[in-house]
Parts: sequence; structure tokens; C-alpha cells
Amino acid sequence: MQPSSPSINPGYTTSAILTGAVARYAAIIAGETFTGPSDYMTKAPATSGSLSGLTVSVESTDETLSLDTDESYVLDVPANGQGTLKAKTVYGALRGLETFSQLLETFEGKRVVRQTPVHIEDKPVLAHRGISLDTARNFYPVKAIERTLDAMSYNKMNVLHWHIVDAQSWPVQSLTSPDLTKNGAYSPSMTYSYDDVKQIIQYGRERGIRIIPEFDIPGHTYIVGNTYPDIMSCLNKQPNWDHFAAEPPSGQLNIAKPEATDFAIEIINEYGRLFSDNVFHLGGDEVNRNCWSEDPDVIAYLADHPDETVETLLVAFYTKVHNAVNALGKASMSWEETLFHSEYVPPKDTIIQTWIDEQSIPSTVAKGYRSIASPASSYYLDCGHGAWLPNFDGNSWCDPFKTWMHIYNFDAFANVTDPEQRKLVIGAEVALWSEQSDETVIDARLWPRAAAMAETAWSGKTDASGHVRTTAEVADRLHNQRFRMVGRGIGAEPMQPLWCARNPGACNLP
Amino acid sequence: MQPSSPSINPGYTTSAILTGAVARYAAIIAGETFTGPSDYMTKAPATSGSLSGLTVSVESTDETLSLDTDESYVLDVPANGQGTLKAKTVYGALRGLETFSQLLETFEGKRVVRQTPVHIEDKPVLAHRGISLDTARNFYPVKAIERTLDAMSYNKMNVLHWHIVDAQSWPVQSLTSPDLTKNGAYSPSMTYSYDDVKQIIQYGRERGIRIIPEFDIPGHTYIVGNTYPDIMSCLNKQPNWDHFAAEPPSGQLNIAKPEATDFAIEIINEYGRLFSDNVFHLGGDEVNRNCWSEDPDVIAYLADHPDETVETLLVAFYTKVHNAVNALGKASMSWEETLFHSEYVPPKDTIIQTWIDEQSIPSTVAKGYRSIASPASSYYLDCGHGAWLPNFDGNSWCDPFKTWMHIYNFDAFANVTDPEQRKLVIGAEVALWSEQSDETVIDARLWPRAAAMAETAWSGKTDASGHVRTTAEVADRLHNQRFRMVGRGIGAEPMQPLWCARNPGACNLP
Repeated sequence: MQPSSPSINPGYTTSAILTGAVARYAAIIAGETFTGPSDYMTKAPATSGSLSGLTVSVESTDETLSLDTDESYVLDVPANGQGTLKAKTVYGALRGLETFSQLLETFEGKRVVRQTPVHIEDKPVLAHRGISLDTARNFYPVKAIERTLDAMSYNKMNVLHWHIVDAQSWPVQSLTSPDLTKNGAYSPSMTYSYDDVKQIIQYGRERGIRIIPEFDIPGHTYIVGNTYPDIMSCLNKQPNWDHFAAEPPSGQLNIAKPEATDFAIEIINEYGRLFSDNVFHLGGDEVNRNCWSEDPDVIAYLADHPDETVETLLVAFYTKVHNAVNALGKASMSWEETLFHSEYVPPKDTIIQTWIDEQSIPSTVAKGYRSIASPASSYYLDCGHGAWLPNFDGNSWCDPFKTWMHIYNFDAFANVTDPEQRKLVIGAEVALWSEQSDETVIDARLWPRAAAMAETAWSGKTDASGHVRTTAEVADRLHNQRFRMVGRGIGAEPMQPLWCARNPGACNLP
Repeated sequence: MQPSSPSINPGYTTSAILTGAVARYAAIIAGETFTGPSDYMTKAPATSGSLSGLTVSVESTDETLSLDTDESYVLDVPANGQGTLKAKTVYGALRGLETFSQLLETFEGKRVVRQTPVHIEDKPVLAHRGISLDTARNFYPVKAIERTLDAMSYNKMNVLHWHIVDAQSWPVQSLTSPDLTKNGAYSPSMTYSYDDVKQIIQYGRERGIRIIPEFDIPGHTYIVGNTYPDIMSCLNKQPNWDHFAAEPPSGQLNIAKPEATDFAIEIINEYGRLFSDNVFHLGGDEVNRNCWSEDPDVIAYLADHPDETVETLLVAFYTKVHNAVNALGKASMSWEETLFHSEYVPPKDTIIQTWIDEQSIPSTVAKGYRSIASPASSYYLDCGHGAWLPNFDGNSWCDPFKTWMHIYNFDAFANVTDPEQRKLVIGAEVALWSEQSDETVIDARLWPRAAAMAETAWSGKTDASGHVRTTAEVADRLHNQRFRMVGRGIGAEPMQPLWCARNPGACNLP
């Protein structure tokens, strides 16, 4: 089948999302002259038919984008005539359009779909397939984030977990506390305005990608102290910051002060309204007890309140901030420490993101909570780049580098056997922590490794016959995806010598 | 001192290299508004003077660029009036212009040189300060190589060791054997024409950078077999390639065949004339004896010649190819195996590049040979990125990643105490092997780590008082260099959170 540039007819023309996507994919298809590296020396397949176009139809006019969104689609591409793409929602149609674009290869100037007729019934295994991006250790311009959203759409990913602030900077505009940004962004030009945020949310929505913001509390908040030092503990303790924090600069909201909790709730109320998604990430990772137990204000407070402890203060803090999220009609998301390393019992709708231990996934679902898998041992894309403390000539804490093979081999469902508990494994996220990343390297740090995760998150670990796919089987397809992404302007890093990409299997370990 | 855009007056206007460099640096200075991150919050230093310009003078009209080129310079920048840059050669003037450009910082729109008067007497510790770039595993466009030469000039590096061909591809045009390129380049567009090579040589020369080509023989030559299979042994043995080569595809020139030696000499004669430098790299690494001892032709030859062995054949081969290099009036460069892992005794003018063992440097100079340090354990920039064999979920062979701190801490002179032997330690090269690199990632793989090596190669490991500089002391300067390079269009990766760059010492390990 040999379409030169097949027309795409959106059946549901009142949807701006769908008509926008159709125009976008028509442009991608018209501009793309992709030949998979392993097809480099082959001739064009014999073609007898001609594809006149693709007709898209969408059942529902509901364009709500959430964890519950139906992303299924059915794609038929005949040897001749009109193709059809049917989906329950516009977001399912987006996924089908991406698949359609990937069916096309170019041989000797002719665009070809191989092995027609094609019939694909498709839907994701995991409802939440994300990238966590830290824009606080180093800043990323809006364009870099939008390019990342494009790349995510090429891989059917649907969540950008925006780790937007951290100890080092507060790059997002605040209307309630403008000084947070003035004193906390790296510079005025390294700031996300409200308009920037809305633009990114809209850009994501047009690609079926939810933007879940994380405002990490009570730890990782040193930068708040630039504006509100009175509500902070252990601000930038030196040189022994490691006693107070996982990395410099140290600083946590002072949970003995009601004003600190008030501040946190104000942040939740402000940004919970700016960000439209119905999940709001509260962080809660790497909380350091020394920071509080050695804080003079905390010590004084506890002396006055002998029935309280650092732990009861933390539970009270978590209770209030989780309630504040729920009061906005949203569910909280939290790093696993909130569940496992505190005495707090989160509301049952809380989504727990695990990272410390792969066994935290079965432990989370066994407690009845929904689980998002982000194991540092497999999914932290920043690892293996060496330490970044300039007087230390050693490895990164999460060495070694996570190869695409290692990422592909991870199974979020491992050791979860109960069918009801398996339903609680709802997602997976690779994470790019930005101590050693910024816009110069984002593409290569993310891609194609995030694509390896994305395939397992969408398609699962097994093929239709139940066979667990091996990385040797996947390599050729992932090469194709990498080269396709490079052609679309994403600086994905090469996986191998091109010779290996062209000769599948010839670079396997014997 | 506060020059808005100081004029630069080349004293030696008949030199196209110098007038070109003056124009280049005038443009860099005019376009650059650099403020070091640790100066971000500081005010402009008090300025009383004004720099009217810089006068450059060069003693010699000899523009030969070689290992013996004098790169010294003396730079004076007064608080007021005219600066002077004096050098023995135009290449010394280039180094001084780079230093001059780096003296400038911008504060509140004003360009400032701090701490005038500045008096710098400068010259390199190592005469050969290079990057080895493999353009065969994956291809790099001419523009990427030229950008790398620009970046090298920003770091006073003076050798691009162009590992131009390898087993996987033969990207360079051949006039004597055009089919080598036709059958060996990845594609016609992934080819270096003679004009491309000449352009790169000229681009390097204008920046004081020698281009030393490597045509790696007798191993790493599989791709020659696409054109001349009859002169090859063990071509692409599968699946047990690891018995025959360090990586797939296997293949070596068949040293039992005179035609293979003739071919090698023809290559040396062709490219020895194309590349103008008086050093020619013959490779000689990772020669695999199984490839020959199990080759039917070699077995038959040795049966007919009972006084010969694989080793005598190899010695005869090396003798002829080294003689061919010498016959062109050039010195050979070879990987350390030629010296240590064969019975061949290279000519005394051979430059030995060590990579396997850091102790190979003292061993090389103890044998009276000149040594270039490229220890994989410190200088291989591709390491730590995981294995690239798609069915193997493990580390790279040279894990871990080489951080800039680790690179900076390496000492090419370690364990070389004899003054005469120390003179034979002539250079250092970081290497980018390209199994997992191509133009998408070259900048970040090289920079700023190569800059860390470059500083030690130019300035040595110690300051004027003999103190061995620590990476904690160097970090602020290297941050400046990284951000300056990014401003000049080089995608150097970030070393740390910007917060750390702005707060020197605050991110040190306690």
C-alpha cells in the first residue's frame, strides 16, 4: 500500500483537539521520509494498492483528560481505499494517529505501509505513563518542555509529572506570594509565568498528556526561606548539610509553626487552582528528622507540649495538607515515604509513587493504595553520571547508568499476584532529576530510554501469546523509534553503532 | 577596567591565520555578555580605567604547526590604555587571544576586566593536548567536527586525533580505492570528501589544532572486506564474534597475504598525503590472534613456511607499514599494544598512545618512546553509559562514568620521576568512542569534561607554588568555562544545580 500523503478526515470536526491533532499528524506524515535502519538496504515492498485516506471517528464528546480516560482505538488500514480509525475518545484517536504515522516507511521516495491489511485493536496496560521532570535544580525553558511533550506523544505517554520547585529554586510565578519567585527563581528569565503554565497545560492536553504538578513539602524547601525564613528549619546548614538533607541546601518547613502549615495550604490552594489536573503531588520524600529535632523552635515547642513529638507534628502537617488537596476535589500523590516512613495514614485515594525499593510496589498495593512505579534502580534517568559534589571523585548514589535494556526489563507488576491488587498498579514514571541536566541535555537524557519504558507501560511485558518480550527482540523497533524521533527534531541518543542498527542480531552478546 | 568592545590590532597583518583569529575573537567578544555564575549577585567591580585596545605582536613568520610549535605568549592588560599580547608564533597569539577573551565579564551591561593590571606569561606543560574522535561507529557531520574544533580552541587544545575509519564504516573518500567509500560509508551523505577533509584541516589550522588521522590496522578493519574480502580474515564471525574481536563485526587484514600489506601501504600513501600533519596514527590496538590462527589461508601459509608464525607475520606487517609512514617524512603514532603486546620494535620516533593501563605511561617512557596518555580508566568519555549489546542488561566494559573531577585528578606524569623520561610524556588525549554517540550528543559527551583535561594538560597539576590543585578549587573556574562555552554555542552539559555554581563550596562533600 502506497499512500503519497494520505488525507486524514476527522469525523468529529467540532473537537479542536482532534482537528488540531489531525493537522499535526498530516504535517508530520507529509514531512517525514523515514526508513528504518534495518530496512536500509532493502527494496520497497511490492505495492498493489493505494490508500486514499484515513477516516477518524470518535464516540464520545467528553474531552475530560484524567486517569480514567479511555485511550483505546481500533485502526484499519486496507490494501486499497480508505483507512479507518475508531476511538471512544479524542485521546484514543490521538494514540491511533500516532500508530498510523508509525506504519509509514519511505522507500526510494515512495511512502509505504507494509503488510496491509493492518488491523490493530489497542489500549494501554497502565493508565498513567509518565515522565517526572525536575525544573528546580536546573531550569528548562518552555520550548524544551513542549518539545518533551511532543516526544511523549510520539510514545503514547500521558503524564508529565512536573517536579516544578525544589530546594534550589522556585521558578514558578506566585500570585499569593510574588516574592517566592522574585527571591527564588534563578533569574526573571528562568521563570514560568501563569501564562507559561497554562500554555504548557494546554499543549499537553492537545496531546493527551496530563500535567501533574509537584510542590514538594515539607522537605526540599530551602528556597522558601529566601522569602519566609521564619517558617523554616535547618536553613542551609554548612558544611555538614548531609546531617540535615539528602543534598544541599538543607531546609524544611518548620512543622512546629502553624504559619508553615498555613503557607503550605496557601500553596496548595493557589497552584491547585492553576493546575487543572485532578491529581496534585505533595512530595513528602526524604524528610529529615534531624532538621527538626535539632531546631531550637521545635525543641522549645515540644518542651511546651510534652504529649507531642516530631512524628505527631508531621502527622498533623500531612493531615492538613492532604485535606487541603481533597478539599479542592483532587486526589493527592505522594512519594512512598509518606506511606512507609511516617506514622501518617494517607486517605485511600492517595496515589503512592515508589522509588526507594522495588518491593514498595507490592507493599503499596497490599495496603490498598494505588501505586506508580518509579524505582531509582531502574527508572532514574539521571543515575550513573558520577557524583556532582566537586570535591568527591566517586560515583552517583544510584549508579550505574540505567540502560534502555535495564529499563525495558523492569516489571511494575513483579510480585503482585492478587488480581485486585494488580488493578492498583496504575502507572509508571521515569524520572529526570536535574542536578546534572538542563536544556542542553534533556533530549538525550530522556530518549530513547523513556520510549523503552513507554512501550512496556502501554503494551505490557508480554506479547499476545504471553511470551515476555526480550530486549533483543525489541532493539530493532526501538532503533526505528529513535531514528524517527531524531527526524522529528528530538535529540534522542544513539543506542548502538549504525552498523548494528542495520544488522539486527549481529551485535548481540553470544 | 572597562572596555566596551576593545579593538584588537594584529601587529603581523600579513598572516591570514592571525588576522582571521583577531576578527573571530573581536566577534566573540562583541557578542558575549558573560557573567560567571558565582558573580551573579555581585556588583560590577569599581572601574577607573578604560582599555583602548589590544596590540598583538608575533615574532616569527614560520606558521608550521606541529608538536614543536611554540604556543607561549605574554599578555598585559593595564588598568588604562592599550593592552599587549606578544607571542613567538601566531599559534601562541591564538592562545593569548583566547585568554584575553576569558578575562572579560559583563556586569549590568558593562564589560569589565577584573584585577587589572593583568600580566600573564603562559605556555603549555604538554605539547600535545587532544581529543580522539571516532567517526566510524557513528558518523559526525563536518559542522559537528568544526564546532568541536571551535570548542577545543576555547580550551587551548591543539590536536584532533581523527579516528576516521573502523570496522563499522569507512566514511572518508578514497581516490585510490573509491569502492572503499562506496561500500563502506553508511551512506553517500555520511561521507567525508577530500574537500571536507581539507576544509577540516584548514579549520583546525586556523585555530592552531593539528589533525592527526588514524587508519587503524590490522584490526578494526571489517569494512574493508565489503570491497576486498580476499585480503581479510575472520570477517563478521557470528554469533561468537567475541572470540575474534573486541566488538562486532570481527575482521582483520590477512597478514599472510602480501596484498593485504600492499593495501595498507596504499592507504598510508594516499591519506598520508591528504593529511598534512607530520604524525600519522596506525592504530594497532586490539589485534586478535584467533582471527589469524584459525584462518584457513593463514594456516595454509604457515604450513608452507614452518619458520614463520602469526607473530613473525605481524612483525613483518608492522615493519612495512611503519616504514611506509617514515618514508613520507612522518612519525607513526600507535596504540600501546604495538609496543607491549607484539614482538615488533617500533622506530624510536614512534609516539605510543596508552589506554589499557595507567602504568603503561612509565613503561613507555622507560623504553625511550614518547607517550600520549589516554587511560580508559580516566580519559574515555564514552564509559559508564551501560552496555550496548541489546541482549545484555549490564554495564559498559569501562564503567563507571568518568566525571570531570576524576579526569582532573589524573596525572600523566605519575610514577615518572626521571627528568629525561618526563620529557617523553608529551601529551594527553581524552577519547570519545562512538558506539553510543553521534551528532545528537557530541557536545555534552565532550564538554565540559574535556575542558577539565585541557586545563591539566596546559597548566599542569600544580599551581605556581607547587600546590596540587584540588577539584574543589577548580569547580568555580570550570563552571565559568562551561557557561561561557554554552554562550558560544557549545552544548556542554551542566556540572551541578545552578544554585551550587552560584554558591561555591556550598555543595562540597563535608
